[in-house]
Amino acid sequence: MRIDIITIFPGMFAALGESIVRRAEDAGLAQIHITDLREHSTNKHRNVDDYPYGGGPGMVMQSEPFFRAVDALRKEDTRRGRVILLGPRGKPFNQRKAQGLASLDRVFLLCGHYEGIDERVRDYLADEEISLGDFVLTGGEIPAMAVADAVIRLLPGVLPRESVEQESFSDELLEFPQYTRPAEFRGMSVPDILLSGDHEKIRRWRREQSLLQTLISRPDLLKNADLTKEERHMLRSEAQRLGFSPEL
Amino acid sequence: MRIDIITIFPGMFAALGESIVRRAEDAGLAQIHITDLREHSTNKHRNVDDYPYGGGPGMVMQSEPFFRAVDALRKEDTRRGRVILLGPRGKPFNQRKAQGLASLDRVFLLCGHYEGIDERVRDYLADEEISLGDFVLTGGEIPAMAVADAVIRLLPGVLPRESVEQESFSDELLEFPQYTRPAEFRGMSVPDILLSGDHEKIRRWRREQSLLQTLISRPDLLKNADLTKEERHMLRSEAQRLGFSPEL
Repeated sequence: MRIDIITIFPGMFAALGESIVRRAEDAGLAQIHITDLREHSTNKHRNVDDYPYGGGPGMVMQSEPFFRAVDALRKEDTRRGRVILLGPRGKPFNQRKAQGLASLDRVFLLCGHYEGIDERVRDYLADEEISLGDFVLTGGEIPAMAVADAVIRLLPGVLPRESVEQESFSDELLEFPQYTRPAEFRGMSVPDILLSGDHEKIRRWRREQSLLQTLISRPDLLKNADLTKEERHMLRSEAQRLGFSPEL
Repeated sequence: MRIDIITIFPGMFAALGESIVRRAEDAGLAQIHITDLREHSTNKHRNVDDYPYGGGPGMVMQSEPFFRAVDALRKEDTRRGRVILLGPRGKPFNQRKAQGLASLDRVFLLCGHYEGIDERVRDYLADEEISLGDFVLTGGEIPAMAVADAVIRLLPGVLPRESVEQESFSDELLEFPQYTRPAEFRGMSVPDILLSGDHEKIRRWRREQSLLQTLISRPDLLKNADLTKEERHMLRSEAQRLGFSPEL
């Protein structure tokens, strides 16, 4: 898979070099190409923004450099790819979207900036807009890193299979608590059951903890979870005890 | 404001040096301190993870190095601060949370990793856990960057005031479309109204566009938005035309 990131801050993406992304690149499973938007500026000052039509504070990123950059990158590698704008108006990113992107052979990530981006990028160049969530960031660079990281770790061969299957959100439940050495530290102990060696008891305890964590922190995830009748019953009585009533 | 980031990948945070964070630091409005968790390892190999009690795949980050790191940083600067773990079980981050954090004088951001983190960090060290959203990342580093960026840009003096007030989510509506030069490009034009010079008409068009964008992309935001009776009416008939019925 190839990911093309188009940005005015190419240096920020050195951060990916220490992450899983590096491992995937070294193993030949993914290629990340960073393009400096300024190389596709339409003027000799390498400017890529200008005043907004209709007035108002701030500057707006021009559309033309983005179109030129994508054109040039499609000449270099002819796979068309999916063009994603990272911006505040997009659909919130989630694990399902990450899985969808991980099945593509090429993705372009366009990093917008907080002042705004010429609407023609949205209307005619981007296939979709993705937002990380309901918060405002200075630019699309950190979201692009998040999308690249979330997608690349799903590519077959990047992570051990059982790690990916066990983790939060992949089965719509939060993870159970984990503990490692020391067994006691400043008076804080590991639950006895984890030291018992009884694997079946541990499995059941972990499943129950995972359900309870989800009930307490993210009850909204339970309505799509794959639960047994006994588990639903346990969660309903636990919810009642805590005084709330999630959809189950 | 001081932000202490505790991580096994300190090099990744060089990325913040190109962002708004650098500008805030240069202006003396924020200080970011990056601490390498391995400096607080309990062994000479600088390991900070170990096998999980009770078995299972992967490694678990130990609690002790996190406690030691926070202790040491509280000796260096005695402000207690709020300790935030970036992990998948946290409440989803949002703009309200960013505003809350921006009012504090010190925040610790602890970067967990996908394999898991000893539960005692959650139970006894962290004041809260924050998640970026319903997707899985390799580690808490990218979320920590997102939180730092979202918070620091809200500090008084970092950005021009009017930019912060106008943008998406700060008033619960998405932003209106922006355009800049050229007025026409590859057959794609700027809406005539923005070239008209009629400021009142432009203001009304922008407000309407902002409402429509929100209706289409994020109707869930409308129920908390500050709308006039006429605006609610317009949105209801537009929603009917599009065949859906958001809460208004």
